[in-house]
Amino acid sequence: KMIKQLLISIVCGAAMLTVGILIGHYGITNAPSWVKDVVRDVDESLIEKFLSEVDNIQIQENLKELTKVPHMATTAGDEQTVQLMLKRWQDPESGLDQAWREEYLVYLSFPDPKNPNKVTVVSPSETVLHTAREKEKSYTPDQDDPAVVQPYAAYSPAGHQRGRLVYANQGKPSDYLLLNQTVDLKGTIAITRYGGAGRAAKAINAAPYGVIGVLVYTDPLDINDGLMSDANETYPHSWYMPPSGVERGSFNTHYGDMLTPYLAAKEETYRIPVEDITGIPPIPIQPIGFEDAYILICELGGEAAPKEWQGAFNCTYNFGGPGFKPTSAFNNSDVKLDIFNHEKIKNSSNVMGVIKGSVEPDRYVIYGNHRDSWVHGAIDPSSGTSVMLELTRVLGKMVKQGKWRPRRSIIFGSWGAEEFGLIGSAEYTEQYFTKLSERTIAYINVDIAVFANATLRASGMPSVQNVIFKAAKQVNAAGLESTSVYDNWIKYSNRTSPAHGTIPRMGYLSGAGSDYAAFVHYLGITAMDISYTYDRLDLTFVALCCLAALPFLSFLTLFIWMFFFIQSKTNARIYPAYHTAYDTFDYASKFIDPGFVSHQAIARTAGNVLIRLADSLVLPLNCSDYAEILEDYLKTAVNLYQNQLQVKHISMGKHPLKRAVASFRSAATHLDQVILSSDLANETPLKVRRINDQLMLLDRAFLNPLAFPDKYAFRHVIWASSSAGKPTFPGLADAYAKAESSGQPRDWDKVHYHLSVLSQAIEGAANTLVDVI
Amino acid sequence: KMIKQLLISIVCGAAMLTVGILIGHYGITNAPSWVKDVVRDVDESLIEKFLSEVDNIQIQENLKELTKVPHMATTAGDEQTVQLMLKRWQDPESGLDQAWREEYLVYLSFPDPKNPNKVTVVSPSETVLHTAREKEKSYTPDQDDPAVVQPYAAYSPAGHQRGRLVYANQGKPSDYLLLNQTVDLKGTIAITRYGGAGRAAKAINAAPYGVIGVLVYTDPLDINDGLMSDANETYPHSWYMPPSGVERGSFNTHYGDMLTPYLAAKEETYRIPVEDITGIPPIPIQPIGFEDAYILICELGGEAAPKEWQGAFNCTYNFGGPGFKPTSAFNNSDVKLDIFNHEKIKNSSNVMGVIKGSVEPDRYVIYGNHRDSWVHGAIDPSSGTSVMLELTRVLGKMVKQGKWRPRRSIIFGSWGAEEFGLIGSAEYTEQYFTKLSERTIAYINVDIAVFANATLRASGMPSVQNVIFKAAKQVNAAGLESTSVYDNWIKYSNRTSPAHGTIPRMGYLSGAGSDYAAFVHYLGITAMDISYTYDRLDLTFVALCCLAALPFLSFLTLFIWMFFFIQSKTNARIYPAYHTAYDTFDYASKFIDPGFVSHQAIARTAGNVLIRLADSLVLPLNCSDYAEILEDYLKTAVNLYQNQLQVKHISMGKHPLKRAVASFRSAATHLDQVILSSDLANETPLKVRRINDQLMLLDRAFLNPLAFPDKYAFRHVIWASSSAGKPTFPGLADAYAKAESSGQPRDWDKVHYHLSVLSQAIEGAANTLVDVI
Repeated sequence: KMIKQLLISIVCGAAMLTVGILIGHYGITNAPSWVKDVVRDVDESLIEKFLSEVDNIQIQENLKELTKVPHMATTAGDEQTVQLMLKRWQDPESGLDQAWREEYLVYLSFPDPKNPNKVTVVSPSETVLHTAREKEKSYTPDQDDPAVVQPYAAYSPAGHQRGRLVYANQGKPSDYLLLNQTVDLKGTIAITRYGGAGRAAKAINAAPYGVIGVLVYTDPLDINDGLMSDANETYPHSWYMPPSGVERGSFNTHYGDMLTPYLAAKEETYRIPVEDITGIPPIPIQPIGFEDAYILICELGGEAAPKEWQGAFNCTYNFGGPGFKPTSAFNNSDVKLDIFNHEKIKNSSNVMGVIKGSVEPDRYVIYGNHRDSWVHGAIDPSSGTSVMLELTRVLGKMVKQGKWRPRRSIIFGSWGAEEFGLIGSAEYTEQYFTKLSERTIAYINVDIAVFANATLRASGMPSVQNVIFKAAKQVNAAGLESTSVYDNWIKYSNRTSPAHGTIPRMGYLSGAGSDYAAFVHYLGITAMDISYTYDRLDLTFVALCCLAALPFLSFLTLFIWMFFFIQSKTNARIYPAYHTAYDTFDYASKFIDPGFVSHQAIARTAGNVLIRLADSLVLPLNCSDYAEILEDYLKTAVNLYQNQLQVKHISMGKHPLKRAVASFRSAATHLDQVILSSDLANETPLKVRRINDQLMLLDRAFLNPLAFPDKYAFRHVIWASSSAGKPTFPGLADAYAKAESSGQPRDWDKVHYHLSVLSQAIEGAANTLVDVI
Repeated sequence: KMIKQLLISIVCGAAMLTVGILIGHYGITNAPSWVKDVVRDVDESLIEKFLSEVDNIQIQENLKELTKVPHMATTAGDEQTVQLMLKRWQDPESGLDQAWREEYLVYLSFPDPKNPNKVTVVSPSETVLHTAREKEKSYTPDQDDPAVVQPYAAYSPAGHQRGRLVYANQGKPSDYLLLNQTVDLKGTIAITRYGGAGRAAKAINAAPYGVIGVLVYTDPLDINDGLMSDANETYPHSWYMPPSGVERGSFNTHYGDMLTPYLAAKEETYRIPVEDITGIPPIPIQPIGFEDAYILICELGGEAAPKEWQGAFNCTYNFGGPGFKPTSAFNNSDVKLDIFNHEKIKNSSNVMGVIKGSVEPDRYVIYGNHRDSWVHGAIDPSSGTSVMLELTRVLGKMVKQGKWRPRRSIIFGSWGAEEFGLIGSAEYTEQYFTKLSERTIAYINVDIAVFANATLRASGMPSVQNVIFKAAKQVNAAGLESTSVYDNWIKYSNRTSPAHGTIPRMGYLSGAGSDYAAFVHYLGITAMDISYTYDRLDLTFVALCCLAALPFLSFLTLFIWMFFFIQSKTNARIYPAYHTAYDTFDYASKFIDPGFVSHQAIARTAGNVLIRLADSLVLPLNCSDYAEILEDYLKTAVNLYQNQLQVKHISMGKHPLKRAVASFRSAATHLDQVILSSDLANETPLKVRRINDQLMLLDRAFLNPLAFPDKYAFRHVIWASSSAGKPTFPGLADAYAKAESSGQPRDWDKVHYHLSVLSQAIEGAANTLVDVI
């Protein structure tokens, strides 16, 4: 019995001991409470919840509210949208942690409402034979809003110019060169069509030939797939531009406020003298509708312009005598430009909002879009703003309800004055340069969210490809029940990757087309731009199909085929109401995205990317995908340049550029391996932070403030803009093109110099990816 | 009994439970093992151990070995020191984790051993009346080493110039301007003394006046406190420069390899054409000893030069006729320069070594010094290298024995080719720009460790003041048993700080005097330069003392006083053997630091700072001390410039510069408060990392690559070099001085521009110190 009692005691004692140990070990934890927070990864169920809550009707309502009135930068309508953003982002139930406005005093250009710009045809007897329309024709009450700004070329100088008209195609340097071989351009007015060259370039290229004024219009060939009649073909019957529609725009070359280069445009900031501004038209320029352009161009005399200069008008596009045909009613008449534009320093606001990060508040994911439009801006930019407001509503609600707080901070930016040259975002990056450079994981830009409703389009650094793919796979394609955005995308645009096989084709952010520019080119921040877009009409493809099919098909079938192509595909430069008074809620909801399902797909995709960047333990940025594109660029460069460079005694064969790209590849592979072989959830949080810093800062390594002395605020040696038009390193391509054309040894030196700049940057980037010490 | 048994059972059970809980809680820890590592702070006992192990005899032996032979950059002697560094740093018992060499192909300038440069006085009949000494006089076998390079001016062009001699004082612009008012300088040779202007500037300033060659010498007034005789006054009897001693040097304006600006000088790197090099002498220049200068200057004719131009020679310094006095044996004679310098691209090595950090390997503390000398370089740079080798021996031993591994990584750099223009360190920062910018906590430079043995001298960003003070308080002053380096320092040089009361006075790193330049000015890395130095002879002070004492003292007492001052204080520009053949182990051990106790004090102080930077949980960098200096600079700027700027309609009263400095102060106070109020040892390690990132990156915020377009690789807007000589913001001071002298509105615009650059930088820095979001 004693033994039995003893045994019971021992068993009980052991049990108590065990229970004690268990309580001690698991019950009273001695691991600090932050341990599990710092190793938490993205929560997939939260992403599902987010996706399910993104609502197309909410987006539609956002758009309706944003487009009530025109909201050109710094106007009363713009202020209304500022207030709307603030109200939403400060909403106690679905707002952000904080929201505020940031103001800049920026240099803008406006027409004079009391003295509208005029384009007239004036006879030798001073009779006005034709006056171009001053305002676009109205089809809905929207277009009658007195706040609709007259079509004009922002930053065109005011002036009164009169001269014979000539047709200069797209106003490219080669166009004026060719035209000048036939016509004496001194004292002429040139009419050009949009496309092929930047807006300001059409005037800048013209001035050296003595051209004194420029007109620009949108040819129906370039925007309407050739259609012209508003009786049945164009808006309000379709998405096409009506005959009186005019694309407004900023006629500048650089981005950011022109008077305060590299400085935030605050009240007492030093401003350069206006005469020091570069990159704007030296002579007056004015945009007009194709209705007026038709009347002018079809009356032009002189020789017929080349085939590539011809547009969709049912007449031959002649060079101009200069001036009109002898048989024309305009014979011997001049075209007269009376431009009353004036510049003003005005107060423009960014609206900023933040959700503070829980674990790494000093790491920022930035999501932004501009708020200002030219007129109502339903598509540009309000489609993006509607999407952003829906994102912030869903995320804000989760934050306010205590259901979520991102690991990293999220900053939302509603930029001002983008239409005048990406001004709000550029000033923001100038003001907060250091802070943003040091802490920003990535910038997501959704400006025009929906150009058209066929497929996703995404551009960005190669390192973001993976997270966009992942997000796109989890979202239903717009209007398709069981196809993902990814599966739909790959059908429209794809490429073969050595690492991944066939994948959707991402674009690059090599220009300055929207507010990503300052982030990419000035700060070297990993960025992306996301939208829904067209099924691009490939005319060569159509022509080949038709030709191939011809023997086998009746003309009726062929006609049906063609009709199908025209309906679902387009060759438009951009959506046809771009920067016109027709870019309204009516237009967007009827012709761009009925039901707002493409908007919804964008909100879901971009939001998914945003959450993953903010919450993932290891940043979902892939440096090996970057290596693939560098290898691609290198291959092109070697193909294009190696032989000729050898002649110039610049070796690419043993050149450090090849070594640098190889170093980058091996460093990227190594870092991938480190990530794969680590148990980051159980190692010190300083290890994952270190890896994430390597990934975050990768693009910073490609910055060189001296690489592009002629390009304002372009510092990223891989993605800078280039005029050479080759799919390779931009500075190398431009330097090579220049040297080839000039033949000067000093220009070949510059090619060599740029090779060294590039090699050092890529080698430097590789150095940041290898073992940290 | 049952009750008793039950009670016993319960008590036992409870006891077992308690034991179990205790075991479970403390015995089987469930906190990850890294938790205590990531919150560990600097270990004071380890610092004590370090201090006690730093050995003066070891330093002396290091110096002896380093100075066996001359080791001018890229010579065989230099290679011997490379091997020595590698051997020490790769030592299995007291070496570093890793050590290697990094090579650069750099542009250097040498005299021709077969055709020594010649300076002669040539009579009209072509008789050579005097030939300047080609090599310095030998007092010890060291000076007879065939590897002793003839005195020369590196980067002086070769050439043969002959002309009348003039005396141009220090070769400043104002000197030539004044001289030119009396003497026609066309075709003359100018003799100048060291000091007042940069080496190259003496020739660059001369050329526009038609001067065709320049001589430069060291006046005994400037280096020897007036003493001249090697019979009893100069080396080998004292530290003073013997009559034949010549300061060699690099005659350049910018730093880094001249052919590869902003690019690491690798084999295939693009090199600019030699004719594009700027900042080097356009006319031949040659340094000579004061023995020869005496012969030339005292024979000069023409008017007497002004009082401030007079040196220590016992004759009147005349301007020159041009040429010599009619009464001189040199009457009508010319001075002739035959310079045979030639430039060569040579392979120069940095030797690098690392101790890998345990917790944050991706954070670097860099400690460096150059390795190359002009001749034996016992003081410059081998005093610093001896100290560095002792540091790495003591630290390396602790690492190899497993007793210590720093929290952060430590990088040691033994730079090459510093004497030719800080080339090794500059190329290193160009090659690893991004990596170093992103990860470097601070750079510690100890070049000349001991100029003299009176007191510590430290220069650096204000944020390092605190850690240097802390370290200096723990180290015994050289040769003083119970006085700390700090207490000794404060006696020699102090200031009143609003925050700290009387404290030692730190200097600033506003020039490019040693290898800190690229770190400070190009990378914006917090840096410091540490040495032991003179008791500076303040002549005004001596004069006042004498005058005040005169009524009370016998002349004998006065004489003794004076003698005491002269013995222990000096007015020398620098230690007198600087860049001569007399800078040997003999000189260093007899006259600079007998017993090597000052070397030891520097090793202990710098090592203490190094360990604290590497091991402290919170970085020992203080941003409020930075604010104090910015306020100081602002006050000076307001005093000097506000009134005149008001006249030019540039308001400083309400100007953002004032606001920016105020923002910086309040942001610094806030961050200090965050640090104080945090329990960082128990909070997430990502919080202390965040704060440390704010501290580490602070100086990066002051960089602007566009702020100083005329100054190569100067980007730090607070510490850039300045020619205005005002204790305030350098770019502002220079812009103001220029505008004031030219009166041009465009120059006043540049003042306004620089105010904006400065305000934005300081405001940007403040933004990095406030709450991270």
